[in-house]
Amino acid sequence: MHVKQLDTPVVVVDLDRVEANIARLQRYLDVHNIANRPHIKTHKIPSIALRQIDAGAVGITCQKVSEAEVMADAGIGDFFIPYNILGRVKLDRLMHLAARVRVSVTADSAYTVHGYAAAASRAGIELPVLVEFDSGTQRCGVQSPQEGAALARLIAESPGLHFGGLMTFPHNAHSDDFVRETKILLQPDGLDVPCVSYGGTPAMWTAHERSEVTEYRAGTYVYGDRAILKSGAMTLDQIALSVICTVVSRPTATRGILDGGSKTFSSDLLGMEGHGLVLEYPEARFYGMSEEHGHVDFGECARRPEIGERVTVIPNHCCPVSNLFDSVVGVRGGEVEETLPVAARGSVQ
Amino acid sequence: MHVKQLDTPVVVVDLDRVEANIARLQRYLDVHNIANRPHIKTHKIPSIALRQIDAGAVGITCQKVSEAEVMADAGIGDFFIPYNILGRVKLDRLMHLAARVRVSVTADSAYTVHGYAAAASRAGIELPVLVEFDSGTQRCGVQSPQEGAALARLIAESPGLHFGGLMTFPHNAHSDDFVRETKILLQPDGLDVPCVSYGGTPAMWTAHERSEVTEYRAGTYVYGDRAILKSGAMTLDQIALSVICTVVSRPTATRGILDGGSKTFSSDLLGMEGHGLVLEYPEARFYGMSEEHGHVDFGECARRPEIGERVTVIPNHCCPVSNLFDSVVGVRGGEVEETLPVAARGSVQ
Repeated sequence: MHVKQLDTPVVVVDLDRVEANIARLQRYLDVHNIANRPHIKTHKIPSIALRQIDAGAVGITCQKVSEAEVMADAGIGDFFIPYNILGRVKLDRLMHLAARVRVSVTADSAYTVHGYAAAASRAGIELPVLVEFDSGTQRCGVQSPQEGAALARLIAESPGLHFGGLMTFPHNAHSDDFVRETKILLQPDGLDVPCVSYGGTPAMWTAHERSEVTEYRAGTYVYGDRAILKSGAMTLDQIALSVICTVVSRPTATRGILDGGSKTFSSDLLGMEGHGLVLEYPEARFYGMSEEHGHVDFGECARRPEIGERVTVIPNHCCPVSNLFDSVVGVRGGEVEETLPVAARGSVQ
Repeated sequence: MHVKQLDTPVVVVDLDRVEANIARLQRYLDVHNIANRPHIKTHKIPSIALRQIDAGAVGITCQKVSEAEVMADAGIGDFFIPYNILGRVKLDRLMHLAARVRVSVTADSAYTVHGYAAAASRAGIELPVLVEFDSGTQRCGVQSPQEGAALARLIAESPGLHFGGLMTFPHNAHSDDFVRETKILLQPDGLDVPCVSYGGTPAMWTAHERSEVTEYRAGTYVYGDRAILKSGAMTLDQIALSVICTVVSRPTATRGILDGGSKTFSSDLLGMEGHGLVLEYPEARFYGMSEEHGHVDFGECARRPEIGERVTVIPNHCCPVSNLFDSVVGVRGGEVEETLPVAARGSVQ
C-alpha cells in the first residue's frame, strides 16, 4: 500500500531515515569513545529499540519502570531509568525488573536513596544508583558538587546499592566543571565515578567537547522534529516522523483547517510560534489548534491548498506525538512496510 | 482499595460528581426545553456516555467517526459528528455506521456536501447534514448567512441528503442573528431549520439566553477543569477529574518536582499561567513541565511538601488528559469503585 492510500490523520515513520539516524549517532559516539544509551521515550517501540541495540547501543534509557517492563519483555537486557523512583508499589516493580535485567537508576535526595536501599535489601539485589545533578533546567538534581558528593557517599554506604556515577540533562560548559569538582570531593573516600551520563538531541554533536562524559542519552534523534530542525542538530531530509493530514475546510481565502489538532500534535510549542511545519506549504503558519482541528493561515503561500488535499506536517515535538497514537506506520520510499504498535505508550507509572 | 493506595500518576474520577454534573446540566436544559447532546470527546468512556443518555440526553456528539463506532458498539443509537468528513475510506466507514445507528454530520463547503451525497447514494442511506457556521473561533464554518443558505439549499437538493439545520461552537450574541438571517434567506425555498445546535461548557448556563438554540453540546461539564473553574461555569467542589501525583524531588527550598508532566497533563495552557491547580497547595505555581516531570514553585506556600508526599492536581484542560490515559479510576468517597477504560481514545481517524 502506498502512503497516499492511508486515511488521515496518520503518523508516518520513514524507516530508512530512522536507520540512518540511528547509525549516524552511533558512529559519532563510537568515534569519540562515548557509550550510547538512547532514550526510548521518543518512539516507545520495541523493534526500534532493538535496532538501536543492534547498531551498537550498550542499552537503553527509559523514563518509567513501566516502559522498561515493556522493553524487557521484548528482549532488551540493559536499562537506565534516570528518575527518582519512589513508593513501595513502584520500587517493588523496579526490583522485579532488576531481578531479570540490568537496571540502574538515579537519585537526587536521601529520601530516594533510602527507598532504593530498603527495596534492594528486601529483594537481595545490588542496584547501581547515579546521582542526578542540575545543569540549569531547574528540574531534578542536586544543586552543588558538595551535595552530589554527600549523596554519592550515602549511596556507597547503603546496603544493596552502589554508586553508579553522575547524570544530567542537558549538558553544557558547566557540566564538566560540576563533575570534576564532585570527583575531587570524592577522592578522599576512594570513590570512583564509573559513569558520567549526559543527554539530549539538540546538543548531541557537541558531546565530544565534554571531556567528562562517558555515556550519552539521546531520544529525539531517532525521528527528529521542528524543534530539532531549529536547533540545527538535524536537517529536513533526516526527519523521519511526519503527520499526514487532510485539509477539511477552507473557510476563507487564506485559512485552511486540517484534520489534526492537539490530540494529534500535542500542544507543545517548545518556544516556537505555531504547531508545526507544513512541508508542501512552508510559508503556512498554524494560528491555532483545537483538539481535532489544526488552524492554518496559508495567506503567505503563493499557492493555497484545495479542500481534500493532503499535507505533511513536521510536528514541533515528536515525542508527545508518538505517545498519542496506538501505532505509527513504517514506510520506505512511500510504500507501507509495517504497522508499528507504540507498545510502551500508556505506560504511565 | 482507597485512592491513597493507587500508584501515581493516576487519573481519578469522582463518580458522584460526574453523576451530579450530568444531572445538573440535564435539568437546566430540560427546564429550557433544549435538547441535550453531550460531547463524549472529554471522557471517551462508553459507561459515562450511557449515564448521559439514561439521564435524558437525546444522543451524543462525537468528533470522529472512529469514536462513534466505539460508542455504537456500546449500545448508543443516536450520533452527531460535527465535522467535515472527507475521503472515500472515512465516508464508507460513516455509511457503515449510518446503516446501524442514527447519524448526522456537518459541512461548511460544497466539496464536503458532494462527498456525503456520493457516499449516501452509494449506500442507499438518507444522511442529515447540518451547516456549520463560524461564530468567531476562526475554525471551520461558513462566514455569512448567504453562504450558509446556499449550502443548505445544496444539501436539500442533493440525493441521499437532507438539510439538518445549523451548528456552531461556541455561541454568543451574534449566533442568533446569524441563524435568524439564514432562516429568512431560506424562507422563499420553503426550507425549515429543524435543529440549531450550539455548544461549549464555559457558556452552557447562558444557553437559554439564545432564543434560536434547539440542541446543546457540552463535553467538559462532565468532569470540569481549571479552565472551566476560571470561566465560572463550575465550582471547585463540582470538579470530578483530578490527577494524583507524587512529589519526587525537592531540589531547592522552594521548588518541587511531580511525577506527572506533559505526557500526563498535556501542554494545554488555554490562556492561563501554569499547568494546573495543586489542591493541597493552592499558591503553588507550575513554572515548567517536561514529559514526565511537573516543575512546581512552592515558594508562596506557607507549608511546603515533603518528598514522597502525594498531591492532587486539577489540570488546565481535562479532555487531553483523559485522552492520554488508557484508563481512569472511578471513585466514590475516596474508595475505588471501578477502573474505566478510555475505550474511544486512540480513535484518531
